[in-house]
Amino acid sequence: MEHEVLRKLRSATVKAGHDALVAFSQDNVTYTAGFLVPSHASNRFRRTITVLAGEQFATQIVVNVEENLAKQRSRFADIRHYNQFTQEAVDLLADALLEAGVGAGQIAIELDYMPAQDYIRLRERLPRATFVPCRELYFNTRMIKTDEEIAVLKEVGELTDRVIGEVLREVRPGMTEKSVAQIIGNKMLEGGCDGLKCQVGSGVRSGITNCTPTDKAFEKGDIVRVEILGDMKYYRSNVTRTAVLGSPTDEQRGIWDVMIGARETCKSMLKPGTAVADLYRAYVKYLRDRGIEPTLKFLGHGIGQTIHEEPYITDTRTVVLEPNITCTMEPLYMIPGRMGFHVEDMYRIIPTGFEAMTGAITPNDELIRIG
Amino acid sequence: MEHEVLRKLRSATVKAGHDALVAFSQDNVTYTAGFLVPSHASNRFRRTITVLAGEQFATQIVVNVEENLAKQRSRFADIRHYNQFTQEAVDLLADALLEAGVGAGQIAIELDYMPAQDYIRLRERLPRATFVPCRELYFNTRMIKTDEEIAVLKEVGELTDRVIGEVLREVRPGMTEKSVAQIIGNKMLEGGCDGLKCQVGSGVRSGITNCTPTDKAFEKGDIVRVEILGDMKYYRSNVTRTAVLGSPTDEQRGIWDVMIGARETCKSMLKPGTAVADLYRAYVKYLRDRGIEPTLKFLGHGIGQTIHEEPYITDTRTVVLEPNITCTMEPLYMIPGRMGFHVEDMYRIIPTGFEAMTGAITPNDELIRIG
Repeated sequence: MEHEVLRKLRSATVKAGHDALVAFSQDNVTYTAGFLVPSHASNRFRRTITVLAGEQFATQIVVNVEENLAKQRSRFADIRHYNQFTQEAVDLLADALLEAGVGAGQIAIELDYMPAQDYIRLRERLPRATFVPCRELYFNTRMIKTDEEIAVLKEVGELTDRVIGEVLREVRPGMTEKSVAQIIGNKMLEGGCDGLKCQVGSGVRSGITNCTPTDKAFEKGDIVRVEILGDMKYYRSNVTRTAVLGSPTDEQRGIWDVMIGARETCKSMLKPGTAVADLYRAYVKYLRDRGIEPTLKFLGHGIGQTIHEEPYITDTRTVVLEPNITCTMEPLYMIPGRMGFHVEDMYRIIPTGFEAMTGAITPNDELIRIG
Repeated sequence: MEHEVLRKLRSATVKAGHDALVAFSQDNVTYTAGFLVPSHASNRFRRTITVLAGEQFATQIVVNVEENLAKQRSRFADIRHYNQFTQEAVDLLADALLEAGVGAGQIAIELDYMPAQDYIRLRERLPRATFVPCRELYFNTRMIKTDEEIAVLKEVGELTDRVIGEVLREVRPGMTEKSVAQIIGNKMLEGGCDGLKCQVGSGVRSGITNCTPTDKAFEKGDIVRVEILGDMKYYRSNVTRTAVLGSPTDEQRGIWDVMIGARETCKSMLKPGTAVADLYRAYVKYLRDRGIEPTLKFLGHGIGQTIHEEPYITDTRTVVLEPNITCTMEPLYMIPGRMGFHVEDMYRIIPTGFEAMTGAITPNDELIRIG
């Protein structure tokens, strides 16, 4: 039998009235194939495409140098390859769609990712087909995780929760942001991650939303903000902690209490039936009632194949929570030029409410005191 | 005065008869702005766009959460931001092009990267404009490096050349591919890299072109292939070495001699005036005359902002070498299911020939003997 993910995608395609489903992006192709073609990530000219049509047709198109690996690792049995210098991947796609008998059909395709040039070419090759976006179809399918996906998310989440605590305990004045990032990198890879990113900001740099680590040394009194984005078996973790080197000031303690208060209020709403827009509004209200204007226009985001996916927890989204949605919540408040506060954990919605996927090992209910 | 890169791009735009130049891709935007917006790399929905028009107009469009960082780090003084949830970046692009007075002009834009959906929208917004590709313009401009770029490429190249030798000397039977990859990662980061990728393949896995490191342990007699792709200040290195745990067999030594012979033949042609197609043909002929069919359809590739850029050294390209082109040459021969051979170094074309940017520290003229 076909893999559960392929069955879910085929079923959503049929339900939406489409004749075929075509993915181009790294996240949607990897989700579909269960395997990341290495050069899909590193070389934008090496297109990788998956095609599902009807009840049977399934093919993956890869650059010739990746053919052997794809045959070993992909969920797709039918792997087709092109020469990057003499062929266009989109021509193999047109051929596949014709072979699948959907040359005049409705093709759900990643219009928000496929290059304009490929779109122009595909319309020339299949003048009778109609092309419609598949962004929502993929988002909605990916949003509800399978048991297999949840197991990986838990594994990478727990590792991240453990590492962030271990590393913060090692921080001393004089160490640099980069050296801390390096320790994090080692521990995450030793723990089984395939890759990671991390942000480390100290002192005024903690007030930069995406604070790439620099050679800045930690100093007594610095707020230290550490965010880890792990990558294991194509799934991600995202955990952020805020610490202080020494004792927090009254101002810092006051702000932190508001962050945590907001998080707890939102946790109480984290269950099937809650609209993400309401969750976001409750967060904003809690902060504003206490004189704090939230820095970001969202409270959190889905997490799975990518760091940011649906449901974004914001008032521009209509998603209502349901079981096996996985997401983060990340109260965040940046005071540019001074300091920043940020706590982020991963949650899974279950029938009775939520299960925290991180936070048990390294809680951050108070500012973590280090150094 | 404007940065040299912006002046080069403006001049190429005018020369090609375009009224504006628009970049969407991470490599072209980073090349133009001299700065990578972090979420440009991590979130495909957060478009980052640069616009140059006429002699003066220059703007960069970023997602709102990256505005502060872009203002600090980008070459562009005019940074415009959008809300990812309520606005489309392409609408800010349309506004900028109208403001620059090129709403009915010829816009050179990344048709090979900009999403189809943005293209459709931009045509609606600017019905009188014409859109033409800028792939060649960017490739040709980026192909000839500035002194600033060459200095960074040398720095990251030398580091990589040093690290690959240091690590190979540490390899012992029983160590795993992943553990070696981790040592490489540490040394590269300690040496000043911002990031890296590496491939480590041993035994039959050395015969996989892109061999992501696994838990496979090294065994006596294994061919070990290590490829490092460094990343420093937005520029890349790419160095590959092949070693053997113990003594090479006669077959292995024979194949290696052909690889190195081919490389030396090609080095003698590495100078201004040589067509890359001729270089590739000389490579293929050298191998075939000795009974070896090259695995890849190219001998090497440009290196700069990205690992793979022009000039690809292959017979489908018409580039003729000229000073300050930087490229790799990578003779490669994979015997799937048995073993693989691969040596790669970085070169800069100079008026009198070439300068090897790597290879002085860790030569690979013979199979490196380790363990």
